[in-house]
Amino acid sequence: MTDAVQIVLAKRPAGDVTADCFREEKVSLPALADGELLIRTRYLSLDPYMRPRMTELRSYVPPFELDKPLTGGAVGEVVESRNPRYAKGDVVTGLLNWASHTRHDGKGLRKLDPAAAPLSAHLGVLGMPSFTAWYGMTKICQPKAGETVFVSAATGAVGQVAGQLARLAGARVVGCAGGEDKCAWAVREAGYDACFNHKTETDVGAVLDKLCPQGIDADFENVGGKIFHAVFERLNNFGRVAFCGAISEYQDQVPMAGPPKMFTIVQRRLNLQGFIISDHVGLMGDFVREVGGYLKDGKLKTRETVVDGLSKAPEAFMGLLRGDNFGKLVVKVG
Amino acid sequence: MTDAVQIVLAKRPAGDVTADCFREEKVSLPALADGELLIRTRYLSLDPYMRPRMTELRSYVPPFELDKPLTGGAVGEVVESRNPRYAKGDVVTGLLNWASHTRHDGKGLRKLDPAAAPLSAHLGVLGMPSFTAWYGMTKICQPKAGETVFVSAATGAVGQVAGQLARLAGARVVGCAGGEDKCAWAVREAGYDACFNHKTETDVGAVLDKLCPQGIDADFENVGGKIFHAVFERLNNFGRVAFCGAISEYQDQVPMAGPPKMFTIVQRRLNLQGFIISDHVGLMGDFVREVGGYLKDGKLKTRETVVDGLSKAPEAFMGLLRGDNFGKLVVKVG
Repeated sequence: MTDAVQIVLAKRPAGDVTADCFREEKVSLPALADGELLIRTRYLSLDPYMRPRMTELRSYVPPFELDKPLTGGAVGEVVESRNPRYAKGDVVTGLLNWASHTRHDGKGLRKLDPAAAPLSAHLGVLGMPSFTAWYGMTKICQPKAGETVFVSAATGAVGQVAGQLARLAGARVVGCAGGEDKCAWAVREAGYDACFNHKTETDVGAVLDKLCPQGIDADFENVGGKIFHAVFERLNNFGRVAFCGAISEYQDQVPMAGPPKMFTIVQRRLNLQGFIISDHVGLMGDFVREVGGYLKDGKLKTRETVVDGLSKAPEAFMGLLRGDNFGKLVVKVG
Repeated sequence: MTDAVQIVLAKRPAGDVTADCFREEKVSLPALADGELLIRTRYLSLDPYMRPRMTELRSYVPPFELDKPLTGGAVGEVVESRNPRYAKGDVVTGLLNWASHTRHDGKGLRKLDPAAAPLSAHLGVLGMPSFTAWYGMTKICQPKAGETVFVSAATGAVGQVAGQLARLAGARVVGCAGGEDKCAWAVREAGYDACFNHKTETDVGAVLDKLCPQGIDADFENVGGKIFHAVFERLNNFGRVAFCGAISEYQDQVPMAGPPKMFTIVQRRLNLQGFIISDHVGLMGDFVREVGGYLKDGKLKTRETVVDGLSKAPEAFMGLLRGDNFGKLVVKVG
């Protein structure tokens, strides 16, 4: 028996996620069965894709279950093991509960070298968000030198890497982010050619016309909504859209209409490709080689927000959906 | 000097094309310069893509010019030549004026063997519409045996070939067309598994649910609008859309919004690819081999509507935009 604290889905949100969608509980975890291990959470990743999982809908991952702990990418430490592949003290990454401790069957975990990098990096620049950025940018956007690439949520966990990969490919990179400080970081640190604050910009079309005078050749789409509509209208012939997320639409109770004039897709021979990184795990090695190389050479800047304490996870997640975080958002647990 | 009759763009349409957008004129064509030839039109192709050309907009082909003859794919006969590559009596295909005669510089023409097939076939099943169908179906939709493929404008010049290519690939093929007679032909002759009449069907979603119980794996999109929206909502994971046209939206004065919930593109990893066949002329040989083979083996049924007389072209074109034609629409000239 281990005493644990966990956060469960208390109710499904209708529109904005609210505090009463979550409930913190103390539970006693039963003893491990053969093959199981007990993992103490060290860092929990909060990501926009979790919002669709809170709703019951046909999606690529099953929805979270009511009255069960939410789950997410995490880094943890094995504190007890009845699984021959893991020993007490191993540091692992994988899907863990929003909890102090998770009983786990060992499937889908990966051991980490805790000396290689700060633990939270495995949830960001060495983990899923960065892999997502790499796949979408190099396999779908395929930026060429001199092209203009747009990245929405330019400083988010995914966007900050996507934009830098486009820059490293020689493209002109323009982004948007929710705040002057984020935009300044995008230009100064991440090397964006320009970044506008979508929270204060009232005419997205006009600012795009100014910042992307040659139109947009590729769009790494994280945000959707009116920003995507304005980008769509400005895509050049043979433009590519790596459709990764649509955070601005996740809390809509009435689904937002798509951009007007879908015939634009024909006229400009556009390619819109949706993707989910878990379909492409076979490319993880290529990602690690390429992005790991950039990191070693100091060519990638990263930024994260660390929230302290599991109890803060719900509030931090609601903030993520409002764009309050700066860079990759992780919760330090315990 | 040759007396010719031609139809010019008298004004740009605002919304529906009307008869006063066209003007028939008698003109005297000046004598040929070196390198030129005079071509008498035999068949003129009428195609939906001509509608966007009547409007001044950023498109893939320049708009038609006011007070100049409209142009289109055609088959004609050389009646006079000062071009060493063509002789009097040659039968050629290429872009010709909406006119009894066209002075031509010889560029972009192709000689035809008039004994090989009925002349009008070079504007349909042996020509651009069929090449379009082949490219979109085999390169983008890529149907696999057992998948469900949807084709809007199922009996149109492009759709009738697209649907049959999907069937030949072993897919279940469902379409829609504007009339009971067209739907009956699609099923009886072209081998569609099902076809519904979009002119009388009030609940497109419900009929799609009935006819495509396993969802839709690939969509050959010719129509756009509410039919596309209903198809989009029913695309399966990894669904493909070959975006070829959006005839239902061409006459909209206020552009129609896109389908709601663009995040579906991510959730289901959809691929939407717009294309224009003139980008792919290098594949013409592959098309001719494959589709020519099917034709020789009697595996493709075709249907066309022939309108007699150049003066009827405007009326026939307005009918095309309403869906009055059945199959490939050509005008027999002279």
